[in-house]
Amino acid sequence: MPEAATTMEGWYCLHDLRTMDWTSWKQASSDERETAIHEFNQLLDKWKDTEDKKEGSHSLYTVVGQKADFIMMILRPTLEELNEIENEFNKTKLAEFTTKSYSYVSIVELSTYMAKGKDVDNDPEIQARLKPILPKWDYICFYPMDKRRDGEDNWYMLPMEERSKLMYSHGMIGRKYAGKVRQIITGSVGFDDWEWGVTLFAHDPLQFKKLVYEMRFDEVSARYGDFGSFYVGNLLKPEQLPQFLHV
Amino acid sequence: MPEAATTMEGWYCLHDLRTMDWTSWKQASSDERETAIHEFNQLLDKWKDTEDKKEGSHSLYTVVGQKADFIMMILRPTLEELNEIENEFNKTKLAEFTTKSYSYVSIVELSTYMAKGKDVDNDPEIQARLKPILPKWDYICFYPMDKRRDGEDNWYMLPMEERSKLMYSHGMIGRKYAGKVRQIITGSVGFDDWEWGVTLFAHDPLQFKKLVYEMRFDEVSARYGDFGSFYVGNLLKPEQLPQFLHV
Amino acid sequence: MPEAATTMEGWYCLHDLRTMDWTSWKQASSDERETAIHEFNQLLDKWKDTEDKKEGSHSLYTVVGQKADFIMMILRPTLEELNEIENEFNKTKLAEFTTKSYSYVSIVELSTYMAKGKDVDNDPEIQARLKPILPKWDYICFYPMDKRRDGEDNWYMLPMEERSKLMYSHGMIGRKYAGKVRQIITGSVGFDDWEWGVTLFAHDPLQFKKLVYEMRFDEVSARYGDFGSFYVGNLLKPEQLPQFLHV
Amino acid sequence: MPEAATTMEGWYCLHDLRTMDWTSWKQASSDERETAIHEFNQLLDKWKDTEDKKEGSHSLYTVVGQKADFIMMILRPTLEELNEIENEFNKTKLAEFTTKSYSYVSIVELSTYMAKGKDVDNDPEIQARLKPILPKWDYICFYPMDKRRDGEDNWYMLPMEERSKLMYSHGMIGRKYAGKVRQIITGSVGFDDWEWGVTLFAHDPLQFKKLVYEMRFDEVSARYGDFGSFYVGNLLKPEQLPQFLHV
Amino acid sequence: MPEAATTMEGWYCLHDLRTMDWTSWKQASSDERETAIHEFNQLLDKWKDTEDKKEGSHSLYTVVGQKADFIMMILRPTLEELNEIENEFNKTKLAEFTTKSYSYVSIVELSTYMAKGKDVDNDPEIQARLKPILPKWDYICFYPMDKRRDGEDNWYMLPMEERSKLMYSHGMIGRKYAGKVRQIITGSVGFDDWEWGVTLFAHDPLQFKKLVYEMRFDEVSARYGDFGSFYVGNLLKPEQLPQFLHV
Repeated sequence: MPEAATTMEGWYCLHDLRTMDWTSWKQASSDERETAIHEFNQLLDKWKDTEDKKEGSHSLYTVVGQKADFIMMILRPTLEELNEIENEFNKTKLAEFTTKSYSYVSIVELSTYMAKGKDVDNDPEIQARLKPILPKWDYICFYPMDKRRDGEDNWYMLPMEERSKLMYSHGMIGRKYAGKVRQIITGSVGFDDWEWGVTLFAHDPLQFKKLVYEMRFDEVSARYGDFGSFYVGNLLKPEQLPQFLHV
Repeated sequence: MPEAATTMEGWYCLHDLRTMDWTSWKQASSDERETAIHEFNQLLDKWKDTEDKKEGSHSLYTVVGQKADFIMMILRPTLEELNEIENEFNKTKLAEFTTKSYSYVSIVELSTYMAKGKDVDNDPEIQARLKPILPKWDYICFYPMDKRRDGEDNWYMLPMEERSKLMYSHGMIGRKYAGKVRQIITGSVGFDDWEWGVTLFAHDPLQFKKLVYEMRFDEVSARYGDFGSFYVGNLLKPEQLPQFLHV
Repeated sequence: MPEAATTMEGWYCLHDLRTMDWTSWKQASSDERETAIHEFNQLLDKWKDTEDKKEGSHSLYTVVGQKADFIMMILRPTLEELNEIENEFNKTKLAEFTTKSYSYVSIVELSTYMAKGKDVDNDPEIQARLKPILPKWDYICFYPMDKRRDGEDNWYMLPMEERSKLMYSHGMIGRKYAGKVRQIITGSVGFDDWEWGVTLFAHDPLQFKKLVYEMRFDEVSARYGDFGSFYVGNLLKPEQLPQFLHV
Repeated sequence: MPEAATTMEGWYCLHDLRTMDWTSWKQASSDERETAIHEFNQLLDKWKDTEDKKEGSHSLYTVVGQKADFIMMILRPTLEELNEIENEFNKTKLAEFTTKSYSYVSIVELSTYMAKGKDVDNDPEIQARLKPILPKWDYICFYPMDKRRDGEDNWYMLPMEERSKLMYSHGMIGRKYAGKVRQIITGSVGFDDWEWGVTLFAHDPLQFKKLVYEMRFDEVSARYGDFGSFYVGNLLKPEQLPQFLHV
Repeated sequence: MPEAATTMEGWYCLHDLRTMDWTSWKQASSDERETAIHEFNQLLDKWKDTEDKKEGSHSLYTVVGQKADFIMMILRPTLEELNEIENEFNKTKLAEFTTKSYSYVSIVELSTYMAKGKDVDNDPEIQARLKPILPKWDYICFYPMDKRRDGEDNWYMLPMEERSKLMYSHGMIGRKYAGKVRQIITGSVGFDDWEWGVTLFAHDPLQFKKLVYEMRFDEVSARYGDFGSFYVGNLLKPEQLPQFLHV
């Protein structure tokens, strides 16, 4: 058996994607709509307080296309907190006008491929990456993925040394996009249907395409990457909410 | 033909996952909601009596993410009892406010890879594992799986000796998690769409990820494991029900 | 081209699985419910008459888990009769409280691998197997399947002699379960999405698992079997109907 | 690059499958139902006129099992006409009581594997096959299919000569069923999700099974055929409509 | 690692497919319907203004078959504009009578396989292809696709030189259809579930089939192409809208 990769974990993560039921939203009274927006803003304020206290983080983006209308990405220290937030949202007035599109449960993960010989618990850079305050950059891209186990292309049968070498050159591509794309890797083995969630933030959405496409020619993706659905969206600031929901 | 593995079976098992329709739940009168909660508590009490008499077992957990809101895992000596419980739940008031998310029909199974030379019917440890009282640990993880039959990676074409050796080293990984993760294997060949259901219980959900990920590098999983959806959740004690369902 | 297998066919077969909409069923008046049950019982009586005249056969079982609430398996000499029965059920009062879960169209089939040199039309044993009165045993198991055509594992490219040999040893496993499991094979090439439907009846549902699992190690299944969904259920006698549908 | 097969095309083809919503159909007033049937009969009359003028053809069959309740197969010289017919049906009263089950867009196709050296535009037999009046035989079978492109089994990488040889012997099987099964091949590359639609008509539905099963042992199907869903049904003559829709 | 292909990008692209709910459309008052049509025409006018100013482009076609009733293909310089257009449509009266069928998010892409040694930013032909005014030809065909990564058939593991050579001969097939088929390639790596969207326009829909089928025998498609669903439709001019929506 090849030596298993070891990982460091930080905050738990919920990607929660919702679709507006615009017809029933329009049929609601303007009072109902205002109440719904107000209540959701209060929720966002509460999440902001948590973020300010560095006890979690979140972001809110629209989603382009029919897959969803918006995505809430939530980071918290425990699975219970994620579950509470999810239920709290489900019980809001706004939720009555949404349907569930997709969700993903994972945990912020760093691979020790990248952290050899560091004192993880006391390394502030590593701690900041394990418990990240999500950037409020203009664009988000989210997709889940697996490492392939298919005939000759079986990542998990490769020796550790080979995997490390491949991941190193894979990481080098990512470095070229420093400042342009920020990447959060969350692990979901045992939590959800794919092995990892990849969340990217950028100032220019074209960089998502450039990065993911360049990586696709790298052996780690070319031979060993299986990808789920891709979701892309625009930052939705709380103050843009009334406009977004205006009917 | 390779020698078939033989198995020991215990209680039948139903995993029953449900999603709340929060909108209609909120529209119900508080009387209706109280009636629904009360009735469901009575059902839980009845199941508890059965468990106290060691004539079955069950557990109730929330599910994180949109796949479901809660999971009922039920063990009973017969398929009829599972069917009755399922129908009884379907006829409750609470069920009117839920939709069906997923279910799984199986039976507690021990492989004789693990029980060589034992007097199964009289071995109390084996009997306790075949008719287990489910632990009320804080977290649950459930997923179905198959052994792969794909070209060169065909589990069922391996000689018994090879399979035993592989399963032995696979089991050794599980042992490292003793006390941290409790595992119930249920067989579903002939009962449901995958060959096995795996239910894990833990005090710390991170151990699910650690265990499943470490095993993925083991040849049994790496070459021969095909996995379905993963469901993860938090223990939902009867006394937490009113809070969970409070709107 | 390998010599094609030839087959004998008997009665056409419809597996029709339905799910109860318990909420609307409860909302119906007790008069409506009684009418619905009475009408369905009349349908069952009519089917029973047909069976008594040996002009067809049928069985009714519950289904465990969320896939369906009950399954009607109907055998008739013609496709028109199956279509009429299906439409007749669809127009009943009971059908208004059900949704469609799954159906399967096929025809009772015997492979000539098993009937070499017999006078098929006059062999009463073969005729009884082609136009079988379904056993009213306590449990049913139904699943569709294909013979695989995948790279090196291509059943349809094997020479007839090889297929015959493999099917013979496969059949030998089935024989070990004589008296415990009764098997009806229905062919669906040209009729439905899989090539065969397999319906098993047993006095003890564990025998479904034992049989299907043992066969999985046989090369016919291990290398050449692709399986659809499995449905398992309990016998639902007409006199149990009021209890099953009691709300 | 292997030489591409060339094809001759005739009328465009729409397979349109619908499911009755029997509950709402029953709730309609008998006036509404009569209106709906009358209007649909007028549509059928119009289609019949077109067929009588040899400007198109159509057929109407029930579908056995839950996949659909009836199938309309429509042939017309242009895609616009198909679109108009589809929209016209969608706007009928009857359509209000149906849901969409499946549809398929294609065009009648003859492969030049079969038409070498003929003057296509003036060959009346070829023209009759490209613009066929659909037989009103008792049974229909429809399924879409692809030629496989999978590793060693890649139809499109075979040399033309090899493909021609394989298609010739494949066609020989079909010829054995002359008079028993009539086959219409429609091409859908660029129009729908599979590469071809196969529609079979027969006097005895067992011949569908015999033909498709025998062909499955032929290398063209065994190694190179991928099949979609199969739909089978009974002829529904306009005069049978009131009976079919009677509630 | 093989050298990654580099690409040039132009306008962002949204394919937005919708299905009419004809029943509720008929139930609406004629006032409501007129309002809905009028409002949608205003939207089309606004899009036309944008197109006239060469700040974007769009087209509107019906879709044949049940997959959708119409497709809006929208090109804009930014992802925000696409999102706004999508939301604006979602809030229209007409949208209340539609359901979402499929959508695709991508960006107009030219491969540098085709643009070697050109001054891209100042080449008017390239700029016109990156920011194209969509032709108002009579027919549209849209499908998403991937380059395959499967065992020996892994596009992304081929050396650049090999890919260039294959793409060159692939492009030669396309050239034969110049004047008959106009092709817009949009890249969707990082934006949606497939790697590319292909949109074809033609005066004769048969040319879609001829082109796609001929290409299928080319190694780029035969060995390396994986295709999603195909959508085909007829041009829907604004003045045809009342007729299309007349009930």
